[in-house]
Amino acid sequence: MEQQNKSTMVVFSGDLDKAMASFIIATGAAAMGKQVTMFFTFWGLNILRKEEYVNVGKKSFMDKMFAAMMPRGPEKLGISKMNFGGLGGKMMKYTMKKKNIVSLKELIEMAQDLDVKMVACTMSMDVMGITQDELIDGLDYAGVASYLADADESKINLFI
Amino acid sequence: MEQQNKSTMVVFSGDLDKAMASFIIATGAAAMGKQVTMFFTFWGLNILRKEEYVNVGKKSFMDKMFAAMMPRGPEKLGISKMNFGGLGGKMMKYTMKKKNIVSLKELIEMAQDLDVKMVACTMSMDVMGITQDELIDGLDYAGVASYLADADESKINLFI
Amino acid sequence: MEQQNKSTMVVFSGDLDKAMASFIIATGAAAMGKQVTMFFTFWGLNILRKEEYVNVGKKSFMDKMFAAMMPRGPEKLGISKMNFGGLGGKMMKYTMKKKNIVSLKELIEMAQDLDVKMVACTMSMDVMGITQDELIDGLDYAGVASYLADADESKINLFI
Repeated sequence: MEQQNKSTMVVFSGDLDKAMASFIIATGAAAMGKQVTMFFTFWGLNILRKEEYVNVGKKSFMDKMFAAMMPRGPEKLGISKMNFGGLGGKMMKYTMKKKNIVSLKELIEMAQDLDVKMVACTMSMDVMGITQDELIDGLDYAGVASYLADADESKINLFI
Repeated sequence: MEQQNKSTMVVFSGDLDKAMASFIIATGAAAMGKQVTMFFTFWGLNILRKEEYVNVGKKSFMDKMFAAMMPRGPEKLGISKMNFGGLGGKMMKYTMKKKNIVSLKELIEMAQDLDVKMVACTMSMDVMGITQDELIDGLDYAGVASYLADADESKINLFI
Repeated sequence: MEQQNKSTMVVFSGDLDKAMASFIIATGAAAMGKQVTMFFTFWGLNILRKEEYVNVGKKSFMDKMFAAMMPRGPEKLGISKMNFGGLGGKMMKYTMKKKNIVSLKELIEMAQDLDVKMVACTMSMDVMGITQDELIDGLDYAGVASYLADADESKINLFI
């Protein structure tokens, strides 16, 4: 049954710990031969931002504010609890490195190598004023209807 | 197969951004012809509160405290990150309005027009001391067994 | 169909309110005859910690820090919103007790009586420096592949 082989996640959160969890599940499922779709929406888009500042010229004041306040990419994310202004996130990254646990950045690369379908939610991009130039390469761009079509064929559906 | 046509969500969060996400998915799924159930529990109940104060007379001190501290309805909710004492929520609403994105209040009305089944969790109402008079019209009232029965027939199950 | 009878939850959160929700769904599903698996990861491990301090001797400075800062067991958890340095959690516990709603500690015992399979994520234990001696009895220990195998056979999959 084809249904067995798909897994779909809405990645709503932009917290380092939740992003780690979503990519560990996604790469695990992909390694087991499943077709995995990750649909990044709201804060989840921050996981996909390029680390360097991208000048896209035409942004409104509000969009600039949002862009400046939100973290750019996997190295900049905080954790959902005990973040203490970024210290918790740094502690977690330090600890994981010392224990030889793969980093979020490496997990994202693994996911791309394993052909995990990574979709950026276009409506969220519009709300937050994020353009395609500011996100990493190799993404799909779609809306909720596309997510629902994938979810409908998936055995495992999660909202993270 | 009947199973294909149902979707069920537990709406646990009372954050504006997560509430938006849940209603965007719910109305999208309903528009595609699915039977959608949203089960509102804990903080999610705040999404369904009437905006005006409702005098229900008989509340205990603790229930009054809870009721006073929690937001009343979609216009009063904060966002899960960068809320800054309500400022973030206002910024998001302002931005969405300017970009012609439908508001949470309108999404709730759309969901009701599309016959999305909206269920208030009676146990959570009891814990938080919220009565039916304080919630919007057109809701069902049930417990976890009812949720599980719906979830069991659903292709897409999410906890938001 | 066997698939109908399994439910699987990732319990990522260590908040009292979310832990309550996960165990209410788990015990409800188990009482309806389903095979339920709860996979505890990241902060969710705190729900399973023994209340008393356990001297495991060999911890690194970082692991000791994490262990000291994180709550030990169901009686110590805070709530996800309006916690106010622990006050919110206490208010909620007080209110639930007064309204004769079963406590998280009792829900965990019920889950074990109902043969809910409770799995501690070994990778998260490693990251947080938590050992088996520090967790309650009767748990399974496994990684993401084990979770995915259970999830694959489950009708209801949630991430909490």
